[in-house]
Parts: sequence; structure tokens; C-alpha cells
Amino acid sequence: MMDTFQIVSVGIVRKKDKKVTIEIHEDYEQALLRLNQFSHIMVYYWFHKNDTPEKRNVLQVHPRGNKANPLTGVFATRSPVRPNPIGMSMCKILCIDGNIIYIDRIDAFNESWVIDIKPCISDIDAISDSKTPAWVRNSGVNLWNKVKK
Amino acid sequence: MMDTFQIVSVGIVRKKDKKVTIEIHEDYEQALLRLNQFSHIMVYYWFHKNDTPEKRNVLQVHPRGNKANPLTGVFATRSPVRPNPIGMSMCKILCIDGNIIYIDRIDAFNESWVIDIKPCISDIDAISDSKTPAWVRNSGVNLWNKVKK
Repeated sequence: MMDTFQIVSVGIVRKKDKKVTIEIHEDYEQALLRLNQFSHIMVYYWFHKNDTPEKRNVLQVHPRGNKANPLTGVFATRSPVRPNPIGMSMCKILCIDGNIIYIDRIDAFNESWVIDIKPCISDIDAISDSKTPAWVRNSGVNLWNKVKK
Repeated sequence: MMDTFQIVSVGIVRKKDKKVTIEIHEDYEQALLRLNQFSHIMVYYWFHKNDTPEKRNVLQVHPRGNKANPLTGVFATRSPVRPNPIGMSMCKILCIDGNIIYIDRIDAFNESWVIDIKPCISDIDAISDSKTPAWVRNSGVNLWNKVKK
């Protein structure tokens, strides 16, 4: 079995003024059918600025780039530096117009490549009482991509 | 800017008897440091059985393979058939022993390649009141990978 796979871009993040959109490539527009029946989506994107052999080999970081936070494995953080630089943000759909999804906000750079979109389904995705370490609780919600509910 | 990226396997799903584990490749074991301070993780894996050009071109499906469910864009489903066959399950950590993460369950085949692990952080991930279409609500929780909370 092979152990590397090919990821393709299915869209792009656009941030302009205060407008945030996901522009799905026209070839993939059909994959949006009925997405407007959901209120929230998980948007997966590629941390393209961290897609270098050196950064993909970094396995431990100080979370949030803060030396006061203990050295932590990247699988225990949302660091953009990780073996496969996949980012994920929970986003609220404002509206969908053709191949453009208008969202509330996203923790990705303008022009990041989007690689997948999945609908958010509370019954299976929402863990209301998850346990987290102190560095997460002390970070404050503004340091994270807090989703408007 | 290039528009395809390379994904590597960082581990493998093992299901044997009733035991479910994520076996992280030894090269990546350091990335697990302090993961035991979290209760839940998002496990990302590759739907390797659907990684064919034909299946990656399927953009609309009847959810859950049920013709009674309306034809829906794959970005509005958790279908394993999608342009980039990335799967995600929320999993409860039972314990971590070296490079082995024992979890409650996962909606992936035995020997699926794992491509990323992210900690679950309720403040940013849990959408308690997301809107979903009828086919989701009518599916019943057993059809989905319901996470023990």
C-alpha cells in the first residue's frame, strides 16, 4: 500500500475588507448542492506557507508561539506547523451564491487553498465537556477562531 | 502557486476484537507529547478504498447510500467519496502508551492511514445548535459515529 497521497485544491479563501468567502473552483461547484441546509461547516485548508520539508519535520512547539507554554507535540496543538499542514476552522455560513460561500470568519490567510468542506453535525461533532490543558484555557477565546453560535 | 500537495501517512488505524487503536509511526511519536492532557481528538484519515480518479470525480451522492435521501453535493455530506478522500472522526482518548493511542471507536476501516490528529477544544469546535437537513435528523444516531461524551 502506498503511503503518500495527492491532495488537490477545490477552492480558495478570499478575505477582502470585512468580507470572508470560500470560492469553490467551478469544476467542483456541483459538490455544494444542498449545503445551504446546514448552518455551520468545517473548512479544511492547506497551510501553504508551512509546506516546506523543514517545517513538516517540526514535531514539537510552544503553543501559540509563547515560550511560557510547555513544549507540546504538534498533534496536541492546532499549530500550522505539522507533518501534513492541514488547517480546519468551524465556520458559520452566511449565504451561498453559486460557487461562493460567505462565512463569518476563518483562521486562514487570504488565498489559502481549500481542500475539503464537511457539514457540521452537532450530534457527532460537538463534545461539550472536553478536557483541555491549562495553556488552552489560559489563552482566552480571542486567540482562537471563536465561532459565533 | 502549485495546486496539488503531498500528504504522508503518520500512522495507521488498528481494529482487533473490540480494541481500537491509532498506531503512530515511530518517526512521529514525539508529536504526541502532552496529548494525554486532552480527552478528545479529531482523527483524520484517508479513505484509501475511494482514492481512484473515478470516485474522486463523484460530486453528488444520495447520503448514506439511501435513494430516499435527496441527491446532495458531497461537501454537504460526510461521504467517503469526495475530491480529497479525507475522513474525520471525533474520538475519545482512553489512554496513550508510547506511540499507541487507545480510543473508544472510529468510523474508519482497519488499516486506514492516519494523516493528522488535532485536539478537540470545545470553545472553538462545539456548535451546540447547528442546523441540519431532514436526512441527517432522520438517520438516527447509530448511523453515525456517535462519540461517547
